Amino acid sequence: MPYDPRSHRPLSFHDAVPAFLAGHDTPRDYLERCIATIEARELEVQAWMALNLEGAREAADASTARYRSGSPIGPVDGMPIGVKDILQTHDMPTSLGILGNEDARTRQDSASVWALRAAGAVILGKTVTTELGGAHPSKSRNPFDATRTAGGSSSGSGAAVGAGMVPAALGTQVVGSIIRPAAFSANVAIKPSFGALNRGERQGLSQSCLGVHAGALEDMWHVAAEIAARAGGDTGHPGMGGTLVPPPARRPTRLIVLETEGWAAVEAPSRDAFAEILAQLEAEGITLLRRSDNPLIEAFERAIDGSVRMSTELVAFENKWSQANLLRLFPSRLSDTTLASFARADAMTVTDYRDLLARRAEARLRHTSLAPIADGIITLSCTGPAPVIDEIIHRPVGRTGNTAMNAWTSFLGCPAVTVPLIGVGGMPVGVQVAGLPGQDEATVGLARWLISAAAPVVR
Amino acid sequence: MPYDPRSHRPLSFHDAVPAFLAGHDTPRDYLERCIATIEARELEVQAWMALNLEGAREAADASTARYRSGSPIGPVDGMPIGVKDILQTHDMPTSLGILGNEDARTRQDSASVWALRAAGAVILGKTVTTELGGAHPSKSRNPFDATRTAGGSSSGSGAAVGAGMVPAALGTQVVGSIIRPAAFSANVAIKPSFGALNRGERQGLSQSCLGVHAGALEDMWHVAAEIAARAGGDTGHPGMGGTLVPPPARRPTRLIVLETEGWAAVEAPSRDAFAEILAQLEAEGITLLRRSDNPLIEAFERAIDGSVRMSTELVAFENKWSQANLLRLFPSRLSDTTLASFARADAMTVTDYRDLLARRAEARLRHTSLAPIADGIITLSCTGPAPVIDEIIHRPVGRTGNTAMNAWTSFLGCPAVTVPLIGVGGMPVGVQVAGLPGQDEATVGLARWLISAAAPVVR
Repeated sequence: MPYDPRSHRPLSFHDAVPAFLAGHDTPRDYLERCIATIEARELEVQAWMALNLEGAREAADASTARYRSGSPIGPVDGMPIGVKDILQTHDMPTSLGILGNEDARTRQDSASVWALRAAGAVILGKTVTTELGGAHPSKSRNPFDATRTAGGSSSGSGAAVGAGMVPAALGTQVVGSIIRPAAFSANVAIKPSFGALNRGERQGLSQSCLGVHAGALEDMWHVAAEIAARAGGDTGHPGMGGTLVPPPARRPTRLIVLETEGWAAVEAPSRDAFAEILAQLEAEGITLLRRSDNPLIEAFERAIDGSVRMSTELVAFENKWSQANLLRLFPSRLSDTTLASFARADAMTVTDYRDLLARRAEARLRHTSLAPIADGIITLSCTGPAPVIDEIIHRPVGRTGNTAMNAWTSFLGCPAVTVPLIGVGGMPVGVQVAGLPGQDEATVGLARWLISAAAPVVR
Repeated sequence: MPYDPRSHRPLSFHDAVPAFLAGHDTPRDYLERCIATIEARELEVQAWMALNLEGAREAADASTARYRSGSPIGPVDGMPIGVKDILQTHDMPTSLGILGNEDARTRQDSASVWALRAAGAVILGKTVTTELGGAHPSKSRNPFDATRTAGGSSSGSGAAVGAGMVPAALGTQVVGSIIRPAAFSANVAIKPSFGALNRGERQGLSQSCLGVHAGALEDMWHVAAEIAARAGGDTGHPGMGGTLVPPPARRPTRLIVLETEGWAAVEAPSRDAFAEILAQLEAEGITLLRRSDNPLIEAFERAIDGSVRMSTELVAFENKWSQANLLRLFPSRLSDTTLASFARADAMTVTDYRDLLARRAEARLRHTSLAPIADGIITLSCTGPAPVIDEIIHRPVGRTGNTAMNAWTSFLGCPAVTVPLIGVGGMPVGVQVAGLPGQDEATVGLARWLISAAAPVVR
């Protein structure tokens, strides 16, 4: 089913709540519709590692009772949610995407899962991840064309939401693992500020973030806000701020149009479609600024150039100490992609790591210098539609798509939101907005404005 | 055996290395002497949860061969080391101090253990920890008087080093869990800057630190430096800096004498002995500054007042999301102390946590304001000698001793080093020096100078 952003109706939850309260619909019925969609499409899309139908139905029934008595817990009460299989749930295994590890049970809930259960959400299942959340492709397929990648590493979360199987799913990103798969599958999604949403047991990487995929921006915000309200952010961080109600649209005065190292790889139809979006914004009276307009923007572009390589190396070094453990636990089971990352780490010293941290600190300082210049940054979320799997599967890198439009926000620890505004050849392409670290609410407000102000573009 | 700081000879390793190189002694023989001490004293001291004698002998033999061929890896090659049983080792269980969890195996090495093995160290065993590294007492006894506590939570590490069973052991501290047990057992020990030494799989608390207990300051530094050189610091931190060689003694010009909230609880003989140490420093020409001497010191003392409560609450909230997991995994097995901490967390909101973070940030700013005033801070490491277990075991708090002299450095994320300079009634009492975050090497240099400049005091 080709994608057309002008007619595509993603699955949303917030707009079902009035019917729950009025008694015309129930969370249990909503869940059954999700399960029916999974049954219809899973064979093709392969978004799920595990489902707990019994537990989900029990939770949906409990939620139904709360709506009946007029006392739902909050906006995610009854919402079916998929959880990336890198995060633990007490009732399902956590495979970490490792072949042969499909039955590994920790019997624990991650912080976000704990928070969402407390908020009444229905934890429906575990969504497919790439191996260890890395660059090796997973089995998931793009919901709009099964010959194409669902991206990675949050492949299943992006695909499940894109296929309308669930209104929201949790993802994680350390380079480009939320925004890219979300953009490939027409999700809205947030990769929040570093530290904004509690990563629970997975606090081991200095750029990794927990984020949310959704069909509707309102649901995306509700899921994030309910996690932040209960589990807070990572330890030592204040956690995502803002109201529990989705922020209103925030019209910018000036936006920076960022190129990043990915710009050279952006395919012509996507570039043209993005130019058309930008033309709409200019017609709306928004001032657009580029690297040639201001030396601070130029210096910033230079500081983030190489984010893909630097982010990849930071992660590799941070995993270095655990490599021997993984080889001991999973002998002969890890992919060549993961082993190549191990080899990269083996060649690195603490001094190399410190140099990367210093480069990152410099880039983050440069980012703050943009605060007086503009209200946010806009760029594409991916270099084009999801690639055909057969065309990328044997490449040395980029086997889940090109991360070059994503790594910079991970490197900066800043919030990024993707919205589906472009269709190219029947496939989705996302547009991305970003703010300064801590400006999650403001960035979501900017994304909301963008959705309302820009007409979708098809090429 | 009563403790006398004037005659006590702790076990050290660095001074055995020349004999290894000359062929008069070997790491294997050194290890056998450690094992003999354990056999002689373990029944009384109860410092160990598990020993891997076979693995240790194998590692010691490999080290012996390296010394024979004249090519030891570095200064910890062949050093027998105890690892607090909160950190994982691939060859032994990790009980986390939970009753009935003595056989839990992760088959993984923590970052520090991985680094020390790579540096040639001999991982001899797991040292006793209190339950989950918390305030509930462990079975360990003080090596200088078995009726007294070994402190906590790094009880076994402190006791094993104090009993001369190993020259060094790893500990962790989030409130007062390294410095206090070290002071009770006449160790030197470092609680480094937050982030300075890689905590491996245990990155879940915003104040927790990996540190080192040792008989000799040189060995303490070598262990810390070898970890930092291989595994670096926590993710996102540059890790402990400085040379691999122990820093030379650093004579201060001015020192701040800190009271902290613990001062009121300090017992008279310890206070008198500390005054005598300070008198020696003044006689050496060192200027001592107190809160009444400078408004910035007064403001700092006020900012850290309440560090015990605030640190305890920070930890409680940070563990909040995992409480249901622990109750699920260990039903009816957790102590009343741990359950009380759970109840404290249940009563807290994200807003409470943010308030504590803001208080902590304020205190850390105040700390930086002291940089131009003095070269470091000096105070006692504990409020007196290790208490008699029967006298504290039924208290609601402080059942492993009073943390009031320790919480402030955890709260500040700054380095603290304890040195054994005082004997009170045949029991050790430590003197503590601290610096600004990042000044680990300078603080160790200050401790080294203190050892050389101050004669031990007995009361």
